[in-house]
Amino acid sequence: MSRDSMFRPHVDRMAGYVPGEQPRDPGVLKLNTNENPYPPSPQALAAIAKVLDNQLRRYPDPVGTAFRIAAARRHGVDPGMILCGNGSDDLLTIITRAFVGPGDLVVYPTPSYILYRTLAELQDARVTEVPFEPDWTLDPARFDVPGARLAFLANPNSPSGTTLSAEQVAVIAERLACPLIVDEAYADFADSDCVSLVTRYPNVIVTRTFSKGYSLAGLRLGYLIAQAPMIEGLIKVKDSYNCDTLSLVGATAALEDRAYHEQTRQKILATRARLTAAVRSLGYHVPESQANFVWCTDGPPAAGVYQKLKDLGILVRLMRYPGQDDGLRITVGTDDEIDRLLEALQTIVG
Amino acid sequence: MSRDSMFRPHVDRMAGYVPGEQPRDPGVLKLNTNENPYPPSPQALAAIAKVLDNQLRRYPDPVGTAFRIAAARRHGVDPGMILCGNGSDDLLTIITRAFVGPGDLVVYPTPSYILYRTLAELQDARVTEVPFEPDWTLDPARFDVPGARLAFLANPNSPSGTTLSAEQVAVIAERLACPLIVDEAYADFADSDCVSLVTRYPNVIVTRTFSKGYSLAGLRLGYLIAQAPMIEGLIKVKDSYNCDTLSLVGATAALEDRAYHEQTRQKILATRARLTAAVRSLGYHVPESQANFVWCTDGPPAAGVYQKLKDLGILVRLMRYPGQDDGLRITVGTDDEIDRLLEALQTIVG
Repeated sequence: MSRDSMFRPHVDRMAGYVPGEQPRDPGVLKLNTNENPYPPSPQALAAIAKVLDNQLRRYPDPVGTAFRIAAARRHGVDPGMILCGNGSDDLLTIITRAFVGPGDLVVYPTPSYILYRTLAELQDARVTEVPFEPDWTLDPARFDVPGARLAFLANPNSPSGTTLSAEQVAVIAERLACPLIVDEAYADFADSDCVSLVTRYPNVIVTRTFSKGYSLAGLRLGYLIAQAPMIEGLIKVKDSYNCDTLSLVGATAALEDRAYHEQTRQKILATRARLTAAVRSLGYHVPESQANFVWCTDGPPAAGVYQKLKDLGILVRLMRYPGQDDGLRITVGTDDEIDRLLEALQTIVG
Repeated sequence: MSRDSMFRPHVDRMAGYVPGEQPRDPGVLKLNTNENPYPPSPQALAAIAKVLDNQLRRYPDPVGTAFRIAAARRHGVDPGMILCGNGSDDLLTIITRAFVGPGDLVVYPTPSYILYRTLAELQDARVTEVPFEPDWTLDPARFDVPGARLAFLANPNSPSGTTLSAEQVAVIAERLACPLIVDEAYADFADSDCVSLVTRYPNVIVTRTFSKGYSLAGLRLGYLIAQAPMIEGLIKVKDSYNCDTLSLVGATAALEDRAYHEQTRQKILATRARLTAAVRSLGYHVPESQANFVWCTDGPPAAGVYQKLKDLGILVRLMRYPGQDDGLRITVGTDDEIDRLLEALQTIVG
C-alpha cells in the first residue's frame, strides 16, 4: 500500500502468513501440510449428507451445543468447558484478541508454529521467542518471561514432532501469570496429552483440531477446552456463528466414531516408524515424532532435496528458522505414498 | 470475571453481541432472524454432495479461487476484487481489525445493525452513531465525522428495510477520508445496489452474504467487493483457511443458479408487499421495505405483541433502540407462514 493507505500502520508493515502450498495438480504427492492421507469417517460424511436437505437455510447453533456435549463426553469434562471454532486457527485468533493488545508481550518457543508470530503481529504486539533446549525440552524459568500476556506451546511441536510431558507443561503453567495455550493440533498421534491440566490450572487452554487426526481439514472445525470463565469471555470475542452446520454435524459424528479414528491412527503410527527409520538411514537427524510428520535436519542439504523432490512431483515442507539449518518436514502419508517418497529420496541422495 | 481476570479490560467490560433466538422446537414459526423460508438451490446441495467423498481431508483453497471467479463474473469485476469470508460477519470483523485500533473512531447510522457497535468495542474503539433523518436518508455532512477511521452503512438498512440510492452513497463515499463499508446483506431483495461504486471509489467496500438471498445461513459464506489493494491488505488479516470446502463449492453453485435465485426472490417480494399492507392496516407504520423483513413501529405496543405472538409459537424480533419506541422486525416467510402470523396478529390486536 502507498503512504495514503487507510490500513493500520502495523498491518501495512506485516508480510502476512503464508500457508503451505496447495497445488491444483492432482498428480502431486502432497506431504507438506500434514493432511491425513485417509478419508474421513464414513459416519461423518453420512451425517453431513443427512442434514444437507433441510437445515442449511437456518443459522447454525451459535455455540454448537450437540458438538460440545460430544466433546465433553470424550474428554470427561463439562460441556461448558468446550468452545468450538472455525478450525483451531480461528480459536487461536480469538484467544489472541481476547488477551493481547498493542505493545503487549506474547511468548512462544522456537522453532515452532510460525502462525504465533503472525497472530501477535496482527495485534501490534511484541514477541519473545524462547529457544527449545537441544533435547527439545523447555526451561520453565526461561519461558516465564516477565510481563507476558499470553504464551503459546505447540505440543506435539511442529516442526520437531516432539512433546513435553503433562507434568513438564504443568510446571510451566504454574509459573506463568498469563494464559498458556497448549496447541494440541497433533495430539491425536501422541502417547499423551494435557487435557487433565485444564481442571487444575485456570490459565491453561488446550486447543484441538479435526484437520489432522480426523481427516477433515477441508471442513474447518477445531475446539478448545478451558475452565468455564475462560469460555464465557472468549464467547464475547468470537463471531456469533463462527461454525457452520455441516462442520458441526460432521465433526460430532467423526468424534464419536472412535473405532475408525483408532484404525487410521494406528496405520499412521506404523508408517511413521518406517519413515523415521528410512530417512535416518539416509543420514538425517530425526527426533522421535509424536505427530503425523517427521522433521529431518543435519543431513543432505534440505533446499536442494526439496527442489528435486518437487521436480519429481513430491511436495514436502522446507522450513527455515533464523540461526538454524534448513530442515524438511515430511507428512506421514499412506504406505504407498511413503514408498514413492523413499524411492525418490534414494535417487536424489542415496 | 473477577478482578484477577487475564482478559483485556475492555473485553471484561463488554456485554457481547446477542444473536437472535434460535429455538430448538421445530414447531416454532421463526420470523426473527431474516432467514429465507425457501430451501437452497438444489444445484448447491448437489455440488456439496459431490465433493463430500474425496476432498475434505485436504485444506481448502485459501482464497477460494473458483468462487472468486464466479462472483467476479456475476458482478462484472476482476476476481482480484473479491474476497470471501466465513459469513459476512467474518468479513466485517476482518475489516474492523484492519482499520481500527484502540481509541479510534467508528461511525455508523442509528438505528442499524447492532453488531457494528460490538465490532468497535472488541477493538476498544470509540463510536459515533449518526441518526437517520425522519425519511431514512442520511445527511452526508453529519455522517462525515472528523477523525473517523471506518464507517459502516447497512444498505438496505436493518431494521428499517430502507435504502439509500447509489448516488446518495456516492456523495457520502466522496466526503469520507476512511473506508466506507456498504453492508449489502439484504441487497438480493432490493431494486438496486452499490457495486458500481467500488470501481469509482478506492475507499468503498461492498459486503454480501449467502445467508439471506440464497437460503444458506447454515453454510456461513459471505464475500466482499473492493479494489485490489484493499483485498491484498485484508488477506493479511484473515485466517488462512477462513472458508471451508463445502461452503465454497455450495455458494459457487448457488451463485450460478440465477433462475432459482430469481424465482425465490420474486416469491419473497410478492409476500413482502402483502405483509406490508396487512400490518399497516393493523395500525403500524411500516417503511417501504427493500429487504426480506418489514419494520413495524408506532402501532399496537410492540413488547406486548411480541410476547403474545411468542406464546402462540411465533417468533418475531423485538428491537429496542435508545430514545426510540420499540419496534417489531418481521421476516418475510412463505405465504402460509405469513397467513399464520396475520391470523395471530388479528387475534391479538384486531
